[in-house]
Amino acid sequence: MGALDEGHFNVQLENRVKLSCVELGFEREPETLAIEDAVKVLLQGLGEDVNREGIKKTPFRVAKALREGTKGYKKNVKDIVQGALFPEAGLDNGIGHAGGAGGIVIVRDLDLFSYCESCLLPFQFKCHVGYVPSGQRVLGLSKLSRVADIFAKRLQHPQRLADEVCSALHHGIKPAGVAVVLQCSHLHFPNLESAFLDTNHQGWVKALVASGSGLFENENADIWTDFLSLLRFRGINGDKTHIKDCTEQSWCPSLSASSAKISSKLESANQGMIAAVVSIIRSLGEDPLREELLGTPSRFVKWLMNFQNANLEMMLNGFAFGRMDLKPNGEVCRSKEQIHSELNLSFWSQCEHHLLPFHGVVHIGYYCVEGFTPIGKSLLQSIVHFYGFKLQVQERLTRQIAETVSSILGGDVIVVVEAGHTCMISRGIEKFGSSTATIAVLGRFATEPSARAMFMQSIPKTTFGG
Amino acid sequence: MGALDEGHFNVQLENRVKLSCVELGFEREPETLAIEDAVKVLLQGLGEDVNREGIKKTPFRVAKALREGTKGYKKNVKDIVQGALFPEAGLDNGIGHAGGAGGIVIVRDLDLFSYCESCLLPFQFKCHVGYVPSGQRVLGLSKLSRVADIFAKRLQHPQRLADEVCSALHHGIKPAGVAVVLQCSHLHFPNLESAFLDTNHQGWVKALVASGSGLFENENADIWTDFLSLLRFRGINGDKTHIKDCTEQSWCPSLSASSAKISSKLESANQGMIAAVVSIIRSLGEDPLREELLGTPSRFVKWLMNFQNANLEMMLNGFAFGRMDLKPNGEVCRSKEQIHSELNLSFWSQCEHHLLPFHGVVHIGYYCVEGFTPIGKSLLQSIVHFYGFKLQVQERLTRQIAETVSSILGGDVIVVVEAGHTCMISRGIEKFGSSTATIAVLGRFATEPSARAMFMQSIPKTTFGG
Repeated sequence: MGALDEGHFNVQLENRVKLSCVELGFEREPETLAIEDAVKVLLQGLGEDVNREGIKKTPFRVAKALREGTKGYKKNVKDIVQGALFPEAGLDNGIGHAGGAGGIVIVRDLDLFSYCESCLLPFQFKCHVGYVPSGQRVLGLSKLSRVADIFAKRLQHPQRLADEVCSALHHGIKPAGVAVVLQCSHLHFPNLESAFLDTNHQGWVKALVASGSGLFENENADIWTDFLSLLRFRGINGDKTHIKDCTEQSWCPSLSASSAKISSKLESANQGMIAAVVSIIRSLGEDPLREELLGTPSRFVKWLMNFQNANLEMMLNGFAFGRMDLKPNGEVCRSKEQIHSELNLSFWSQCEHHLLPFHGVVHIGYYCVEGFTPIGKSLLQSIVHFYGFKLQVQERLTRQIAETVSSILGGDVIVVVEAGHTCMISRGIEKFGSSTATIAVLGRFATEPSARAMFMQSIPKTTFGG
Repeated sequence: MGALDEGHFNVQLENRVKLSCVELGFEREPETLAIEDAVKVLLQGLGEDVNREGIKKTPFRVAKALREGTKGYKKNVKDIVQGALFPEAGLDNGIGHAGGAGGIVIVRDLDLFSYCESCLLPFQFKCHVGYVPSGQRVLGLSKLSRVADIFAKRLQHPQRLADEVCSALHHGIKPAGVAVVLQCSHLHFPNLESAFLDTNHQGWVKALVASGSGLFENENADIWTDFLSLLRFRGINGDKTHIKDCTEQSWCPSLSASSAKISSKLESANQGMIAAVVSIIRSLGEDPLREELLGTPSRFVKWLMNFQNANLEMMLNGFAFGRMDLKPNGEVCRSKEQIHSELNLSFWSQCEHHLLPFHGVVHIGYYCVEGFTPIGKSLLQSIVHFYGFKLQVQERLTRQIAETVSSILGGDVIVVVEAGHTCMISRGIEKFGSSTATIAVLGRFATEPSARAMFMQSIPKTTFGG
């Protein structure tokens, strides 16, 4: 622990961590190096210093995450299925209705993630797979998840993903039928401007898609009712009419009317960044000229440019301070005894270690200094957005908001940030449902535990998953 | 797909699936072979034919799962932490209260699993980790999960696990303090006899443990209030008095008064199986003579022997049929129009592919044949337990219950089984929260969709996670 004891640490060490076999030599593979180069171009385009400590290894981390997240291109359904088909008699030893011939087998609530082909952001989904065994054999339950994951670990669209999983299982296990239902959640896609203008942004765009083969091919078949009845208990409405195709327009927020406009000015200014994303897509084994991927580089760069390095004055110009809502009567604080609080100010940010979004809420509490004017909600929201829309870590975001609010209010401030991090859900870690909370305290909130406790008890419970 | 097309399949193929690097040569390592041999002894002790199709590869699967589940013995905290410490200024650039110096950072709701050192069954837990940065550096968020996983992937007890994670993080990142709270769930531990006698078995035993270092060392420190306030929103009561040590007696059900008695007769009869489990423990890199592990082989064998291969008459002797509750007045069915149903009959079973428990509920519906006597709940529960307490797959269990009920009732039967499978939570798959549903239908339930729908709508929603 010598190096650590001295307060030094060497990020190069990350390379020495043993990599698993798939990644042996991973660091030197041309695809990895190409992605690293491309990520450097993107970081420079954001105005970042690529040698800054926090992001020095970001190109490697992004390459590792992207290749891990798209490893399904190299995987084979047959390898997974063949060793795991088990003989199992059916009812009546023939065309019965259970066991190895007839009765539906359903695995529900498999948490998985995929990469959106329209914008290159990960999306998460709950996968429900059912099949009706035939030929007196059943598949090991975990293989349903592993086969779904082969197709999830690609650049995907929900409906195609469902269709591919369904078709692969149908060909792999030759059952009487396969049904796949996916509940997908895609992070919302605001930009700095729309985040300010529309304070009611939903965090997630949802899509429900289904695919069926064999007995499930006809979507009005009675067997769908059986299948959906057993999913109803998992939070899905059993009404078949609720399952409909999700069109590209209604799914990825980058394709919605307001987001899809990418000015030619923006395109030409960021030509180098767009070319870098094309190179990334190619390095993942995809064809950048595939129809669905044609606009993806521009859309990804547009999203990324929301997090351009910039200073407070420039970013807030025309937005927040212009609409700062001072209390109507110019009221000033006459007492330091009351905690003012603004809860659930939403934010979007981009993890600088992985170039992946994190998203959540900020809670701010303060004692107003006597004679000062209580601060308006929209100013606090502006400060939150300003520090959110850049490459960040949540710890720094929390401190920066606290410092800025304290500089305006002169003292006693508490800031709590709660967020879900895409980098905890995708990549190798896959900790669905986890969330991160950080706290910064100044003045009386640092010295008085009761003040902290009073504020924290007022924070409502929020969930951050899709 | 030739072999599959012909209805053949070769379980040997499983060996050809590419293994990851850690496992290269895994199949030939002496530890793997020793575990495989031991598992064969266990299977024979259960009265199974080790060459039966479904369990032929079980010794290999068990060895793979156990070694995967205990790989933490070979992992190093330093390797994980060192590459992921990032410089981050604190408030006031010094002993401030946020950022890289001062403010608590908490990662909540990490789903992990571990192996119970008292009984060798996996248990799952939600892990909440917090620390207060110092030295102007913060740890990459995912590393909190990865460090916890190093200690989870061992034979563990909740309190030691919490202490080890806390201590490792404290030494690894030198923060001002570390807090760890674990919400653990251990599968209940009934045997055939107690399952019959006590129909109100809870599925899970819960334990809540905490560990703290530095600022968190004093369990009455105000900072625990801050930490628990932010966990309260995750379903933990913030009252410190709720977090108490869990003693061995109150945790693993195999140590509870009624389970702990292992007769010397049982011990001597199963000497070979007990020796096999000792060999497994040694092959995992543990010392079978470590105090906490001394009784583990006997306890594991006692649990396993619940699933001994036996025939219906022998198993039910003295239990169910003796207490079969015919309707009091000897009532017989006069109409075929009414669906009789028994919902939520609990069961415990053992997955024959992985020697891991699965646990859930069975729902049975039937039309009584005119002139027949409606079947009593306790008889149905007996049938469910009989087919549960053996090496099983859920598909077969469903079919067998349907066939047996139908043979008694002469016809129209539907059986729905819903279960959580330990083999979907532990091993490499780690699909926390997933569950499996299977259906068997006979007679009118096979031909009339409306009969199925009516029955399935009466099934209440259940969750199967810990």
